[in-house]
Amino acid sequence: MMAREAIVLRVPAAAPDDVSGIESAFKAGLDSRNVVAILGKTEGNGCVNDFTRAFAVSALHRLMERHLPAGGADAISYVMSGGTEGALSPHLLLLARQDGASSDGAGPALAIGSAQTADLRPEDIGRVAQVAQVAEGVRAAMGDASIGDAAEVHFVQIKCPLLTAGRVMDAEARGATAVTRDTLKSMGLSRGASALGVAVALGEVELDAITDEMIGRDPTLWSGRASTSAGVELMNHEIVVLGMSPAWTGPLAIDHAVMADAIDVDPVRAALRRLGFTFDGQLRGDEQGALLALLAKAEAGGSGRLRGRRHTMLDDSDISSTRHARAFVGGVLAGLVGHSEIFVSGGAEHQGPDGGGPVAIIADRSRLAGAER
Amino acid sequence: MMAREAIVLRVPAAAPDDVSGIESAFKAGLDSRNVVAILGKTEGNGCVNDFTRAFAVSALHRLMERHLPAGGADAISYVMSGGTEGALSPHLLLLARQDGASSDGAGPALAIGSAQTADLRPEDIGRVAQVAQVAEGVRAAMGDASIGDAAEVHFVQIKCPLLTAGRVMDAEARGATAVTRDTLKSMGLSRGASALGVAVALGEVELDAITDEMIGRDPTLWSGRASTSAGVELMNHEIVVLGMSPAWTGPLAIDHAVMADAIDVDPVRAALRRLGFTFDGQLRGDEQGALLALLAKAEAGGSGRLRGRRHTMLDDSDISSTRHARAFVGGVLAGLVGHSEIFVSGGAEHQGPDGGGPVAIIADRSRLAGAER
Amino acid sequence: MMAREAIVLRVPAAAPDDVSGIESAFKAGLDSRNVVAILGKTEGNGCVNDFTRAFAVSALHRLMERHLPAGGADAISYVMSGGTEGALSPHLLLLARQDGASSDGAGPALAIGSAQTADLRPEDIGRVAQVAQVAEGVRAAMGDASIGDAAEVHFVQIKCPLLTAGRVMDAEARGATAVTRDTLKSMGLSRGASALGVAVALGEVELDAITDEMIGRDPTLWSGRASTSAGVELMNHEIVVLGMSPAWTGPLAIDHAVMADAIDVDPVRAALRRLGFTFDGQLRGDEQGALLALLAKAEAGGSGRLRGRRHTMLDDSDISSTRHARAFVGGVLAGLVGHSEIFVSGGAEHQGPDGGGPVAIIADRSRLAGAER
Amino acid sequence: MMAREAIVLRVPAAAPDDVSGIESAFKAGLDSRNVVAILGKTEGNGCVNDFTRAFAVSALHRLMERHLPAGGADAISYVMSGGTEGALSPHLLLLARQDGASSDGAGPALAIGSAQTADLRPEDIGRVAQVAQVAEGVRAAMGDASIGDAAEVHFVQIKCPLLTAGRVMDAEARGATAVTRDTLKSMGLSRGASALGVAVALGEVELDAITDEMIGRDPTLWSGRASTSAGVELMNHEIVVLGMSPAWTGPLAIDHAVMADAIDVDPVRAALRRLGFTFDGQLRGDEQGALLALLAKAEAGGSGRLRGRRHTMLDDSDISSTRHARAFVGGVLAGLVGHSEIFVSGGAEHQGPDGGGPVAIIADRSRLAGAER
Repeated sequence: MMAREAIVLRVPAAAPDDVSGIESAFKAGLDSRNVVAILGKTEGNGCVNDFTRAFAVSALHRLMERHLPAGGADAISYVMSGGTEGALSPHLLLLARQDGASSDGAGPALAIGSAQTADLRPEDIGRVAQVAQVAEGVRAAMGDASIGDAAEVHFVQIKCPLLTAGRVMDAEARGATAVTRDTLKSMGLSRGASALGVAVALGEVELDAITDEMIGRDPTLWSGRASTSAGVELMNHEIVVLGMSPAWTGPLAIDHAVMADAIDVDPVRAALRRLGFTFDGQLRGDEQGALLALLAKAEAGGSGRLRGRRHTMLDDSDISSTRHARAFVGGVLAGLVGHSEIFVSGGAEHQGPDGGGPVAIIADRSRLAGAER
Repeated sequence: MMAREAIVLRVPAAAPDDVSGIESAFKAGLDSRNVVAILGKTEGNGCVNDFTRAFAVSALHRLMERHLPAGGADAISYVMSGGTEGALSPHLLLLARQDGASSDGAGPALAIGSAQTADLRPEDIGRVAQVAQVAEGVRAAMGDASIGDAAEVHFVQIKCPLLTAGRVMDAEARGATAVTRDTLKSMGLSRGASALGVAVALGEVELDAITDEMIGRDPTLWSGRASTSAGVELMNHEIVVLGMSPAWTGPLAIDHAVMADAIDVDPVRAALRRLGFTFDGQLRGDEQGALLALLAKAEAGGSGRLRGRRHTMLDDSDISSTRHARAFVGGVLAGLVGHSEIFVSGGAEHQGPDGGGPVAIIADRSRLAGAER
Repeated sequence: MMAREAIVLRVPAAAPDDVSGIESAFKAGLDSRNVVAILGKTEGNGCVNDFTRAFAVSALHRLMERHLPAGGADAISYVMSGGTEGALSPHLLLLARQDGASSDGAGPALAIGSAQTADLRPEDIGRVAQVAQVAEGVRAAMGDASIGDAAEVHFVQIKCPLLTAGRVMDAEARGATAVTRDTLKSMGLSRGASALGVAVALGEVELDAITDEMIGRDPTLWSGRASTSAGVELMNHEIVVLGMSPAWTGPLAIDHAVMADAIDVDPVRAALRRLGFTFDGQLRGDEQGALLALLAKAEAGGSGRLRGRRHTMLDDSDISSTRHARAFVGGVLAGLVGHSEIFVSGGAEHQGPDGGGPVAIIADRSRLAGAER
Repeated sequence: MMAREAIVLRVPAAAPDDVSGIESAFKAGLDSRNVVAILGKTEGNGCVNDFTRAFAVSALHRLMERHLPAGGADAISYVMSGGTEGALSPHLLLLARQDGASSDGAGPALAIGSAQTADLRPEDIGRVAQVAQVAEGVRAAMGDASIGDAAEVHFVQIKCPLLTAGRVMDAEARGATAVTRDTLKSMGLSRGASALGVAVALGEVELDAITDEMIGRDPTLWSGRASTSAGVELMNHEIVVLGMSPAWTGPLAIDHAVMADAIDVDPVRAALRRLGFTFDGQLRGDEQGALLALLAKAEAGGSGRLRGRRHTMLDDSDISSTRHARAFVGGVLAGLVGHSEIFVSGGAEHQGPDGGGPVAIIADRSRLAGAER
C-alpha cells in the first residue's frame, strides 16, 4: 500500500493579497491539486472590521481558480487570522498531501485530514447541537487522515458559521430562537461551541457534561488542540485535522503543548524537545529551518491578572485585548523560537485554559541535527 | 568609613495615581528622606497625549510633600514611562540610599548617584552642546555614586527637556535657531542627544566623533546603558546613575545587557547568570523574588524587518509602533523572567542598536539559592 | 424677598489639570463659596481607561481646597466627560449661584439646584429601586432650585455609582444578587436607571411602567433632559438640576431640544430661536458670546444606520463608537453655533431616543441683539 | 453637433468589495463603456495600512473586466478614499458620459474630462517638475471636457504617484536625488505638488511663484478645486476634471465652495443656493435627491486651533488627525445636507487653506422644486 505524505509550505506575504509565494511554489513543481488548506496571518486588526482576511481569501481563491479545474478552488479551506501585532510577520501556510513512498515502516508521520459538516440551522449556533455536529465532523476528518487514536491528533482547525441579522430572523420565522441577536457575540459562541466539539471528539470533555449554558461561560471546559474561527461566508464547518499516523510517511511530524497562561513557555519548549529539537535558550539558527510552523492561540484571560500581576488589556478602550494578547504572546514565542513568522491568533473561547492556549508545532525531522531516518 | 547601601523597592500600581505601595513602605519604616528617584510604568499610550505620566507624578509629588520638609519633594527625580501594552503590569520603582554597615570588604554593591545639570538653552537642545553637557552631568552623578570606572556603570536614566513653541521663539528672539520647530520631534532629538551624552561619559562614543547632523540620524552611534525620556517641565537634566561600587555595601547588585534586536534574549540570560541566577528555560519561582527590577528599551527598528521577516509596526496607523514594540518585547522578556512587572519603555534613539536596546537588571543576591557573599 | 442669580462660567483648559481659568475668575472676584458644580470636557478617550477625568477632578478638588474651608471642596459636584474628538475643545463649565437683586418681576431666569441621594445598595444599581431613588432626588433638587413645574426643568446632570467586584461580593454576601457582574456593563445600567429616574421625576415616563428588564434594553423609554455619568468614587447620586424659575433673576436663561438622530439640528436651531437668537445658517459672531453653554449627548444608535445610510461606527474595532459619535455630532453642532467649545458627551442610555439625544442651551440674554428684558 | 451628457451615479457599499450597486445599474441599462471614473469612500482608516482601498479597486476592476472588452477596465480611473469616520457612509460614485441630445442651447451642463500624463521620473515627485506636468495634464483634461475657461472648472480629482524604496534607489542609481527617502512623506509631497499643478492650470497660483522648497511647506499656496490622492500603482497621473461647459447638456450641474476652516459652512450653503437649492437650516427631504454628490477635503490644520479654540487632533496618538477631521467635517456637512453619504477625504496639502478645504457639489437640476432650465 502506498503511504501518503504531507507537505507544509510557509511563505511570507508582502500584503494581504500577495500570493506570489504560493505561485512560485506551483511554478517550482508543487502540484496545486494536492492543496488541502491555506492558513494565513494577515495584517488587519483581527476584529470585526478586518477586511484583510477577505482580501486575502479573494486573492487566494483567484490564484487557485487559475491553477485548478472549475470548482477546485472551492474545495480548499482558507483560514485567515487577522492581526500581526508586535513583530509578528504576515505569512501563509499551505497544507497539502501527496502519494508518498511505499509505507514500509516509514511512519508515523504528519497526517492531514479534512471534512465538511452539513449546514447548521441558525438556532443551533452556539448550542450543544453545534458541539455534537462538530464532534462528528472531527471524527470524519480523523478518518480522512487515517488517524485512529484521538491521542494522535495535535491540532484541529475549524472554520465555523456566525449569526447575521438575516439568519436570526430566519430562525425566528420558524418559531425558533437564536442564542443571541448580537452578531459579534455569536462569533465567540460559535468558536466556543466548535472548540468544545473538538474536545468531545478527542475525549477531552464528555458531550453529556455540556449544556447550552456552559458554552461561552465555563472556562474550565476546553480543548488543548482546537483552533476555531468564525466566518460569515459559510453555514457549515470546514475542519482540518493534523496529527500523527502510521499510514503516512515522510519527514514531517507534529506535536502540541498547552500554555497555562500567556508566559507559560516551558510546555512549548518540552514539545519542541519531544520533536527532536535540542537547544538551550533560544532555538538555534540551524534548527530554525526545521520548524515549519508554530500555531498558537492567545487571549487576555478573564481575571485581569497574569500570575497575580494586574495587566491592562481588558480595560484598554483604544486597543482590543486580542491585539494586546497577540503582540505579547507573539513576543513570548518568538523569543523562544528565534523568529516572528509564527501563527498567533486570538479569540480562544474553550481553546485552552482561561488566559492560556494550545500551541501546535510542525517540524521537518530531516533538518534536525540528529536526524537519521 | 561608613559604606552606603542602596534600596530598591518595586510596588504595583492599581491606577496612575495609586501611591499606596510607597505609602505602606514609609509606614513600615522606609525613610522617605532617603529617596533619590521614583520610576514608574503607567498605563497610558506612552505617546504625546499620555496624561497618566503627569497624573502619577502629581500623586507622587503630593505623597512626598506629606512626608518631607518643604522643598524635599522637588529634589526627587520622577521618571514615568507610559505604556503597559500586552500583559505589562503598571508599577513603581523606588530608588533610595542609606548609610550602610561599615564597609570592611563588603562591596562592591549597587550604587546610586544623581546629578542635575544647569539649564540648557533652547537652541542647544538636540545638538552637540547638549551631548557635552549631559556627559559632564553623568560624570558628576558617577562621582556622587562613588563609581570611578565607567565600566562599572550599568544604567543611566535621564530626564531631559524638549522644545515648546515658546522656547523656539525665545531662541529666535536672540538670533539663534532651534534644531526644529516640531515640538514632538524635539523630544526624540533631546532623548537622542542625552543618550549620546551617556555614551560619551561612558567611553562608548568619542565626543569629537559626533556632529549635530548625526543626532537622531546615525543609528550606529549608541549607548548600551542609557535610558532617556523628555519632559516639558524642565530645561535642565535630571540624571540617575546605577552601577557597582566598592564604596557601597549590601546584597543588591546590577548588571546589564544589550539586545541586538527585539528577540535577542541570550545576552539578557547571560547577564542574569553573571548575577548569580541559575536557571534553564524560564526564571524559576524561587529566583523571581531575587530579581528586583528589569528595565529595557524597545523600538520597532527602522528596517521594517526583524531578522529578515517583515513586521507591520511602522505601517500601522491605528497603533503607534512604540506600543507594538513594548507589547512584543514585554512578551519576550516576561517569557524569560516569568512575570510581567517589568519596565519596558519606548523611544530608544541612540539607546542601543537600531531595533534593539539596553536592558538593566537589579538583583538581590541574598535571595539567590547559592547566596553566601 | 431676595432672588437668587445663577452664574455660568466657561473657560478653556490647556490640559486635564489646567484649572487656571477658574483660578483667574476667583482672583477677579468670583466667590468660590458660590460654586455648585464644575463640569468639564477632558481630552481622554472617554471610555474605561480614561484617566484625564480623574486627573481633572484631582486638580479641581485641590483648587477648591485652597479656596474653601475644610470640607467645602467635597460639597461641589465635579462631572468630567472624557473625549474631545474632532475639533471639540477641552473646557470647564462652572455653575454657581449668588444672591441677586430684589426679585421684583425680574424672573424667570436660570435656576440651579442640587441634591444628593442616600447611598444605594449595590444590588439596587441598574434596577427600578435606583430609578425611584433618583426620581426623588431630582424632585429635591428641583425644590432646591425653586422650580415647581417639571416643564421648567431643561437639564438634569447626574453622577451615579457603578458596580465593582467588591460591591458585587458585598451584595452576594447578604444573599442578594447584583444586576450584573460585568463592571463595565454596570456603568451603562446605572446611567440608564438614573436617566429613567429623571424621566419619572419630569413626568416623561411613569414609574409603574418601568420594570428591571426594560432598563438598558428598551430604547423607547427616555428622558429628553437627562445627562448621566457613572463614577467609581460614590455610592449615592449627585444631582444638579437646571431650569427656569421666577424665583431667580439675572440675564441667564436655559432651554433644551431633543435631537431625533445625529444630524437632527432643526430642534436645536428652534431652541436657540426661542431663547432670542436670530440667525440664519451659522450663529453669528456677535451672538456667539451670548451662548454660554451647549450640552449634548451623542451615540451611534443601535440600527447601524443614520436615516437609512449605513455607518460603520458600531463595527469599528479600532475606535469606540462613542468616540466616532462625539466627533460627528460635535461637527454637526459646531457647524450650527460657529465654534467647538461645546459639551458633547457619550453613553446616552435612556437619554433621548436611540441614536439621538438631549441638548441643553444656556444663554446670556443681555448679550443678544434685541435684548431688553 | 451632438452635445455630450454627464451621468453621475451614487450607490451605497455594504463592504469594501461590494460592487452590486454598479452591477445593478449595468443591468438596468447603464452602458459600461461610458464609465470614465469610479470614486469611492471605503471603511478603512484612510492611512498607510488601509487595505480597503485596494480591496475595493480589486473588486471594481474585476467587475469592469466582466463588462468591458480586454483592456477596457484599465482605462477607467479608480479613486478610493479610505475613512468613513463618524456616521459617514461607505459608497461609490460613478462618473460616466454619453452622447446627449442635440445641443441647441441646452447647456451649459456638467462636463467630465480626463487625461493621463506621461510617467514622472522618481526624482521629480514632489517638485516643481511635477507641478508643471500636472498643470499640463489638467489643461488636456479640460480640453477633453470642452471646458475653455478655467473659471468653469469646479473640481479636479488627481491620482498621483509616490516614492518607494525601489524608486528612490532608481533615481540615485542615475545620480539624481529623490525629494525624500521617507515613502509616507512622499505621498503628501506628491499630493501637494499635484494640487499646485491644478492651481497653476486654473490660474490660482503662478508657476513661476513656486519653488521646490514651498511644496508641502507654504500653506498660503493652494487650489480651491483640487482633490489629490497618491497611489503606489502608477508613476503617471490620472486626472479627472469636472466643470460646466456649453458643449454639454442635461440636467446635471456642478459648483464649488472653499471652506476657510472646518466649520465654515456658509460658503457651502451659498454654493447650494447658486445651484438652485432653496432651504433654511438643513437641506429638505425633497431637495436631497437633487444633491447627487458632495465632495470635500478635511484636515486638522496646523495651528492646533479652530477659531481660537484649542483642539486635540494633532496631539492624539491613538487616532490619526485625518480620522478626527473626517468625522468632524463629516458632521458639519451632514448637518447641512441632511444625510451622511458624502465624500469627505483627508490629506489636503495645498488643497484649500490650512485647516479648510474645497467642497464640490453636483446637482440634478431637474429634481429641484423650481426647476425649469
